[in-house]
Amino acid sequence: MGPTVYVINPNSSQTVTAEIDKAVAPLRSADGPDIVCLSLAEGPPGIQSQQDVDGVIVPMLRKAVELEDSAGAFVVACFSDPGLHALRELSRRRVFGIAECGVLTALTLGQRFGVIAILPTSVPRHLRYFGAMGVMDRFAADLPIGLGVAELSDEGRALDRMIKVGRTLKDSHGADVLVMGCAGMARFRTALEAAVGVPVVEPTQAAVAMAVGHVRLSQPAAH
Amino acid sequence: MGPTVYVINPNSSQTVTAEIDKAVAPLRSADGPDIVCLSLAEGPPGIQSQQDVDGVIVPMLRKAVELEDSAGAFVVACFSDPGLHALRELSRRRVFGIAECGVLTALTLGQRFGVIAILPTSVPRHLRYFGAMGVMDRFAADLPIGLGVAELSDEGRALDRMIKVGRTLKDSHGADVLVMGCAGMARFRTALEAAVGVPVVEPTQAAVAMAVGHVRLSQPAAH
Amino acid sequence: MGPTVYVINPNSSQTVTAEIDKAVAPLRSADGPDIVCLSLAEGPPGIQSQQDVDGVIVPMLRKAVELEDSAGAFVVACFSDPGLHALRELSRRRVFGIAECGVLTALTLGQRFGVIAILPTSVPRHLRYFGAMGVMDRFAADLPIGLGVAELSDEGRALDRMIKVGRTLKDSHGADVLVMGCAGMARFRTALEAAVGVPVVEPTQAAVAMAVGHVRLSQPAAH
Amino acid sequence: MGPTVYVINPNSSQTVTAEIDKAVAPLRSADGPDIVCLSLAEGPPGIQSQQDVDGVIVPMLRKAVELEDSAGAFVVACFSDPGLHALRELSRRRVFGIAECGVLTALTLGQRFGVIAILPTSVPRHLRYFGAMGVMDRFAADLPIGLGVAELSDEGRALDRMIKVGRTLKDSHGADVLVMGCAGMARFRTALEAAVGVPVVEPTQAAVAMAVGHVRLSQPAAH
Amino acid sequence: MGPTVYVINPNSSQTVTAEIDKAVAPLRSADGPDIVCLSLAEGPPGIQSQQDVDGVIVPMLRKAVELEDSAGAFVVACFSDPGLHALRELSRRRVFGIAECGVLTALTLGQRFGVIAILPTSVPRHLRYFGAMGVMDRFAADLPIGLGVAELSDEGRALDRMIKVGRTLKDSHGADVLVMGCAGMARFRTALEAAVGVPVVEPTQAAVAMAVGHVRLSQPAAH
Amino acid sequence: MGPTVYVINPNSSQTVTAEIDKAVAPLRSADGPDIVCLSLAEGPPGIQSQQDVDGVIVPMLRKAVELEDSAGAFVVACFSDPGLHALRELSRRRVFGIAECGVLTALTLGQRFGVIAILPTSVPRHLRYFGAMGVMDRFAADLPIGLGVAELSDEGRALDRMIKVGRTLKDSHGADVLVMGCAGMARFRTALEAAVGVPVVEPTQAAVAMAVGHVRLSQPAAH
Repeated sequence: MGPTVYVINPNSSQTVTAEIDKAVAPLRSADGPDIVCLSLAEGPPGIQSQQDVDGVIVPMLRKAVELEDSAGAFVVACFSDPGLHALRELSRRRVFGIAECGVLTALTLGQRFGVIAILPTSVPRHLRYFGAMGVMDRFAADLPIGLGVAELSDEGRALDRMIKVGRTLKDSHGADVLVMGCAGMARFRTALEAAVGVPVVEPTQAAVAMAVGHVRLSQPAAH
Repeated sequence: MGPTVYVINPNSSQTVTAEIDKAVAPLRSADGPDIVCLSLAEGPPGIQSQQDVDGVIVPMLRKAVELEDSAGAFVVACFSDPGLHALRELSRRRVFGIAECGVLTALTLGQRFGVIAILPTSVPRHLRYFGAMGVMDRFAADLPIGLGVAELSDEGRALDRMIKVGRTLKDSHGADVLVMGCAGMARFRTALEAAVGVPVVEPTQAAVAMAVGHVRLSQPAAH
Repeated sequence: MGPTVYVINPNSSQTVTAEIDKAVAPLRSADGPDIVCLSLAEGPPGIQSQQDVDGVIVPMLRKAVELEDSAGAFVVACFSDPGLHALRELSRRRVFGIAECGVLTALTLGQRFGVIAILPTSVPRHLRYFGAMGVMDRFAADLPIGLGVAELSDEGRALDRMIKVGRTLKDSHGADVLVMGCAGMARFRTALEAAVGVPVVEPTQAAVAMAVGHVRLSQPAAH
Repeated sequence: MGPTVYVINPNSSQTVTAEIDKAVAPLRSADGPDIVCLSLAEGPPGIQSQQDVDGVIVPMLRKAVELEDSAGAFVVACFSDPGLHALRELSRRRVFGIAECGVLTALTLGQRFGVIAILPTSVPRHLRYFGAMGVMDRFAADLPIGLGVAELSDEGRALDRMIKVGRTLKDSHGADVLVMGCAGMARFRTALEAAVGVPVVEPTQAAVAMAVGHVRLSQPAAH
Repeated sequence: MGPTVYVINPNSSQTVTAEIDKAVAPLRSADGPDIVCLSLAEGPPGIQSQQDVDGVIVPMLRKAVELEDSAGAFVVACFSDPGLHALRELSRRRVFGIAECGVLTALTLGQRFGVIAILPTSVPRHLRYFGAMGVMDRFAADLPIGLGVAELSDEGRALDRMIKVGRTLKDSHGADVLVMGCAGMARFRTALEAAVGVPVVEPTQAAVAMAVGHVRLSQPAAH
Repeated sequence: MGPTVYVINPNSSQTVTAEIDKAVAPLRSADGPDIVCLSLAEGPPGIQSQQDVDGVIVPMLRKAVELEDSAGAFVVACFSDPGLHALRELSRRRVFGIAECGVLTALTLGQRFGVIAILPTSVPRHLRYFGAMGVMDRFAADLPIGLGVAELSDEGRALDRMIKVGRTLKDSHGADVLVMGCAGMARFRTALEAAVGVPVVEPTQAAVAMAVGHVRLSQPAAH
């Protein structure tokens, strides 16, 4: 058994984890690293505030430590990348955050990235993070759809809002690539891309793709 | 009894808290807000890693909630400003971080600020934070003295290292103002300033000064 | 008698100086530095152009030199911070500018600051200054209310305009903190904050709070 | 037959192409996209000047057009990313540049990236590119080893120079991650990483990993 | 015969070259360098895509080499500055690009420059270039008029569109100076400036003015 | 008589003005605008401090107003560009600053500009200005030669210092173009360029070249 890419959804929602699992399925290969997606039992149902972000770090690190020996890489699957740098310090494995990888991947697809956030309160948190990443010169805007976790289950409405926000990002803010500012939304990606007319990055896919590449490159070539 | 400025040292070291208390004493006034400095029993003896930073957030927030009713403002007294934004979301009071206020105050004293860190591992963490603050155009460098907590008790050596690093920041990196990248070091400030020849900001003092000003301005004028 | 914080309003308007005096009154304490606000007789009635800004520097420096011996700190109370760096070179005291301190204080209250200017011609001047400060990554926008000095005396209209501009800064430019781009407007601060729903910084208060803190920290602790 | 990732080395050196082929071998999988590395017959033996960079674009685009139908993605395998944006306009496939992907991947591994260039004349070209990418706030330095193509065949000397430059990037410029500023050098990566003590990104591997991920994600999941 | 300023229009349109020639005529003087404007026979009728930009570099360099001996300076007269850096490497003469000089000249006329592009697809190309120039902090926006080459011949409509876009750049994006993002449009400059009410830079004029100055300064003074 | 380019040296040194006059002589042409260089009687012998800079603005504006009617453009010939923006507001003519034009011209000659200052105290003033110009991403360093006005008359020593500082800017800070941070030093330009091996911009020449171009372009073409 080779090393595994562990995708840790730091909230406790099995539904979100199942969505992530489905989203990254195409990255699995017969001879490549296993990709295991898991929820964090100690996490809240959804991560909506800075307090939620900070609160999941300790249990997430504990979980990662348990997985360390069989891990080839970790992916932190929440768009605030909670505990990313703590886990990088702690682990001997490479650690990928979905916000970081989602934005970096977007930089290969357009000159100005826009972000579709869920809640208005996420926006300043994202801005601080993009500032820390040093990518503000490529930033168009970050706008929320303004739906709570419960309301997201009305899929039609959620998609409508994403399309509306996506179009505003494109037309009023000059975004030519979008990043979905949340995990577990991959099912909307194709429709959103078609409706808005610019590439859309699903950040979990972006991060797991980079993680799988890393694990493969750390192994002896089989071909 | 008016509102209090609570200065929370998120490590468990009473010595550091006592130093902070002494450093901010001149900011107390007979008719102004009380300034109470306290340690976090749940914190580690010193905050040295990102994991330490993230680990103190939950207990610090809990402590702040207890103090909320009597608080006029909070000061997070660790140079990584742990939990700053979570506490801002959570509290109805204004919250000041010593790294943020230390750097911002430095911007009034020189064109390029240098930071004296304790450990090399703190440097990238500080850089991420300065990036999030959007102040990299004013940044000279952040260099560590490379002493562990235990070694800091040898005060002569600690000061010598600070002076050496301070001179490098000034002479090789163009810093014309320095920020002490740690709480509890105020006793070295004057000697450091004299030896290096540029202003030195003690970040706890910078933050508490702003907090006291805020609390006073939120009260009806007595004069 | 201890050292005094001199707040120099570099225009000749006694009304503005009186407003500043009232705004900073809560920062006075029985055992703290005296705070003296004064107008500059040689200044114009209002500082509206770059020429006004540059024209007050020489008389302001002359006035500051007279006050130097009894000064603990100077505050330049015009949002263009005229002569700030000249006075810093000239004086042995610390010098605070209200634009600089207002913006820096705003950085502790939101991720993107908006500025409410008086006249359209002030905007490029402010932009140059924020560029020199290196804070453009945190800048939302700077919009004028477009009223001349005379028209500001119609307080209802002035406040209405500020609220309108404040809302535009928040809703269209993403500002989550506002700075009043003028001295002598503190009386509108609370109403503006309530109407727009984001924190509003009155820059004279911000600067004097930092100045008082500095003077206290330069004295032997009395408590 | 599924779509192929075409890795176009825009110089005519079969040796470099063979090195690239070996470097990306671990990214091949039984059930994944084919990865085909090829030289550009019309290219110069090595790409050393801006004129070389610009000169290969037209033939490279012609080559890519021929491959378009069987392509899943293109990788431009020269650290100046010649023709990257022209190919993006021209092709219906996604196009990855090794400089872009190498630098972006480095941003997940350290806070300040350093680049090891081959020739001094490459440095300003790289700087313009990093400016266009908007990543200068994360940039430490870009330093050349100063060896011509012929001299690179002396492998011991080449590695020694890379290590020397890598150490300077780390010790004097604060780089905590390095990017190899050239294709075809993957064989030095491990030794370089060990000698300098910071992660080293081989840019062809970084780009092909992202390309493979993209192609997989564009296909129906097989698992 | 003294050295000549060669203004190379890298498209094949004689009409555009004639317009350029007329625009720069006032820069000719009896005792100054000759200014010769020429089209590139191998170029496309108009340069509209990145592929067009990259495609003209090789023939343009060839043309410049032929002119080298009699040249005092070269001006690349297309707003994408194709081959600018290659020609700088290749030639012993100084080389000016109209986009570079147009934007830099705009920086002397306003605090935030807006660009009027012809086609939407030019915008991300311009943004990459402004990023490479490091001037994004001064950038307001770059908006297209959305007319193809053929449609530009309807002069009334072209001017109307430019005025409309210019007003949007000024009113919604805060531009206080405009740059025409295309060569051969000088005839619209005065009307545009009058209609929008901010200075408008014609980039060919800006570049040739700098080129003439350079050539004069490289000669012995005659006065 | 056509309009004149007035080059105002805002210090009172006739020697400096004579040097400027000689430096810009090649920009005069039989059929072009007159170029008149003049000293400011009210200015200090040399402009060395921020106080000097601010102090010359009022008399310089007064002088410019006198010249307005016959002026085609103004050049402010001191590397701190005193009163640049006030004069722009005040005058109907275009106004050029030598620091602004010197730096902008340098951006056409290299990717990272270094500045040779006279005194250490000028450096933070220059940095603030480059920040206001938004060009810090292109900035290498600004280093002083550390000679007072009197000492500059020892020409051999002055040149030696400039060469030494120029080499440090190139070798340690990565500057590939230099700007002379002072007016009246044009006689050293060629020797400095030869000794350091990178282009050197004399800022008065840069500004007057742009001013002459502007005046010519504002006149009807004579050829």
